[in-house]
Amino acid sequence: MITLTSDFGSPYPAAMKGVIRRYTDAELVDVAHDLPRGDPRAAAFWLRFVLPEFPPAVHCAVIDPGVGTGRDALVVRAGSHAIVAPDNGLAMPPARALAGDGSDVDVRTIDVDDPASATFHGRDVFAPTAARIRVAIDEAAADETPPAAGPTPEAVADALAALDDLSPASDPVDLAFPEPSVERDGDGDAAAIDGEVLAVDRFGNVITNVPGELVRGRDWIRVDGDLTPVAETFGAVEPGEQLVTVGSHGYAECDVNDGRGDGAFDLRPGDAVRFVADNVSL
Amino acid sequence: MITLTSDFGSPYPAAMKGVIRRYTDAELVDVAHDLPRGDPRAAAFWLRFVLPEFPPAVHCAVIDPGVGTGRDALVVRAGSHAIVAPDNGLAMPPARALAGDGSDVDVRTIDVDDPASATFHGRDVFAPTAARIRVAIDEAAADETPPAAGPTPEAVADALAALDDLSPASDPVDLAFPEPSVERDGDGDAAAIDGEVLAVDRFGNVITNVPGELVRGRDWIRVDGDLTPVAETFGAVEPGEQLVTVGSHGYAECDVNDGRGDGAFDLRPGDAVRFVADNVSL
Amino acid sequence: MITLTSDFGSPYPAAMKGVIRRYTDAELVDVAHDLPRGDPRAAAFWLRFVLPEFPPAVHCAVIDPGVGTGRDALVVRAGSHAIVAPDNGLAMPPARALAGDGSDVDVRTIDVDDPASATFHGRDVFAPTAARIRVAIDEAAADETPPAAGPTPEAVADALAALDDLSPASDPVDLAFPEPSVERDGDGDAAAIDGEVLAVDRFGNVITNVPGELVRGRDWIRVDGDLTPVAETFGAVEPGEQLVTVGSHGYAECDVNDGRGDGAFDLRPGDAVRFVADNVSL
Repeated sequence: MITLTSDFGSPYPAAMKGVIRRYTDAELVDVAHDLPRGDPRAAAFWLRFVLPEFPPAVHCAVIDPGVGTGRDALVVRAGSHAIVAPDNGLAMPPARALAGDGSDVDVRTIDVDDPASATFHGRDVFAPTAARIRVAIDEAAADETPPAAGPTPEAVADALAALDDLSPASDPVDLAFPEPSVERDGDGDAAAIDGEVLAVDRFGNVITNVPGELVRGRDWIRVDGDLTPVAETFGAVEPGEQLVTVGSHGYAECDVNDGRGDGAFDLRPGDAVRFVADNVSL
Repeated sequence: MITLTSDFGSPYPAAMKGVIRRYTDAELVDVAHDLPRGDPRAAAFWLRFVLPEFPPAVHCAVIDPGVGTGRDALVVRAGSHAIVAPDNGLAMPPARALAGDGSDVDVRTIDVDDPASATFHGRDVFAPTAARIRVAIDEAAADETPPAAGPTPEAVADALAALDDLSPASDPVDLAFPEPSVERDGDGDAAAIDGEVLAVDRFGNVITNVPGELVRGRDWIRVDGDLTPVAETFGAVEPGEQLVTVGSHGYAECDVNDGRGDGAFDLRPGDAVRFVADNVSL
Repeated sequence: MITLTSDFGSPYPAAMKGVIRRYTDAELVDVAHDLPRGDPRAAAFWLRFVLPEFPPAVHCAVIDPGVGTGRDALVVRAGSHAIVAPDNGLAMPPARALAGDGSDVDVRTIDVDDPASATFHGRDVFAPTAARIRVAIDEAAADETPPAAGPTPEAVADALAALDDLSPASDPVDLAFPEPSVERDGDGDAAAIDGEVLAVDRFGNVITNVPGELVRGRDWIRVDGDLTPVAETFGAVEPGEQLVTVGSHGYAECDVNDGRGDGAFDLRPGDAVRFVADNVSL
């Protein structure tokens, strides 16, 4: 399987699929092609959330504001998965999530030789590399004795090491999500949390970087000053009402039941957001 | 095959696909992931239209405004098809359409045991259930003697009955589309029809609940008072002009050739719409 | 493989896929379903760009403003590829691109017999025809001795010729992209170029009909009077700044790094655009 992720809209991803089909019949699964434009951090957030649901696969992820400049192109192995992506950090958070304890990751640079275009490396670099890696991993997995259920991390590592146009990356760009800052009360409970908005989804749900355990179990919390109910799910409040909940990725979200949290809370990706316990005056 | 339908946008459906791939390599076909948010009736309308085009399949349909509340999760068998969906009625109209005469339908409740999240049952409940059902049906079909072209309704029913976490549903939510009210003239012809808008598509075509035979064959009809040509297809009127036609689902539509009917007729889903014969003053 | 292209949005393409699955398990790949509405020229532009990336396939392309009128339905063979499309010209530019030197193209008319609807020939005419052609080509390819890597152009031609409901098209609609007009200076270099906007992509990149070689290698060029840098790629200018680049399709584009060229240059599909050398006063 090869998954495909980009900010390309259509029909550019189809060109990538056509290229891949010249190498392999591996299944193709779209993750998203409407991710925020040129934003590796947003892509890293979503891929860290989605890719761990998949069995071992090759993931081709092209959010590439530096296309055609000197930025490197990478293959990041994480356990039995491989992520093919530009060297802008987007691959590292999902790689750590895929690698279980985060340690079984290695990074290789693709030796790119004169791509056909300066602006569409999705088609000219990343898609063919993902396809060739898929073929190499499948061949390595077929050689394992006894045949494994899927490719082992060793088989994937060996397959990548055997490709002449990949070489160990010396200093890949990394990317981390901001950590919230937490002020605790005398009992050690979180009294105030200064967080940041990581993403907004199609529903307008505002996903923050605040871990769910810091808000879960409360009845109310102040969001940028406004007292807001904390609930397990949307339906706990009336349609149109605001709530704080813990999303499926484990982070605190600012939502509206049957409405848009981004509008109601006036929060967008990158914005600061302050949560304060309802019994605290800060 | 497993079809996938939701109002999730992206990349949530990819998480569902990843989960399914942990169970089965069955083909995955997207029906739509941009259906109107939290609107089971709209989903039921579109699925009733689309699903009967498919050969027997498992259909995973998650428009789920009640996620995380007490609503049940269902598997609805219709002939050789199975629909996995929340218990909000969305599965029933397409199930009746899939079952031919509408009678070969049975409904089971999924015994859900502590899902991983309160807000993403698409990933945590419906996708894994669809995958397990797919595996069970495939195994049952493989056991048939002689092997059938596809699974028989009996094989599907047996496969579902054998799953421990499914039990007969006592009182599933149903959902019906509103029927138009028709005033007839002395000859029994429809003189006036009070209908409702069921859906609007990407083109802005306004799909009503008025059966096509009530408008087909006329030259003109009044739509909310305005005399409008009735035509077989868009190209029968000039670009930018309004028309009433019978859509591919068999209902009367209010359209504009190379334009948007929803804007021109000022009609949105749920709106009332009155059709009056052009020779009648009502 | 069958690729699918339309302006249908969702969920109409899923109905086409369901129909195809009643004939064949051939892989289905979406090219795009959000192409500009009713615009065969835009579709021709994108398909000419994307389809040549694919190995031999059947391509079902339904941008069909004339649906239900007297327009013909076509199968256009180009080398080992076949395009199934309405007779409005959209298939011809990609067919010439697929046929290598452009000569190995033949066109057949589908004898359509009373389709189920007047407005959804994607489901009722083009999808089933694409499926039947796919089956016929696969059967013909399987009969080749020795088996070819893919179907040969001869096998595809024979398969199409053997289908009773296809007959040679007498006068298919063709469609050509406008050629820019070029004024040259004393050295034969392009001093001024009057072009046209062919398409705008998701990024807002304005794709013109001006061949890249007419702008490549310059440092600056005037676009409708405004001096604009010419660069290999977006990252060569600061975020928010305008540039002219040569896109992956080989045409001059008017772009903004991390912004929208269509807004900044005030250019839309069909608009005229004038490029003038920076050292020329015209």
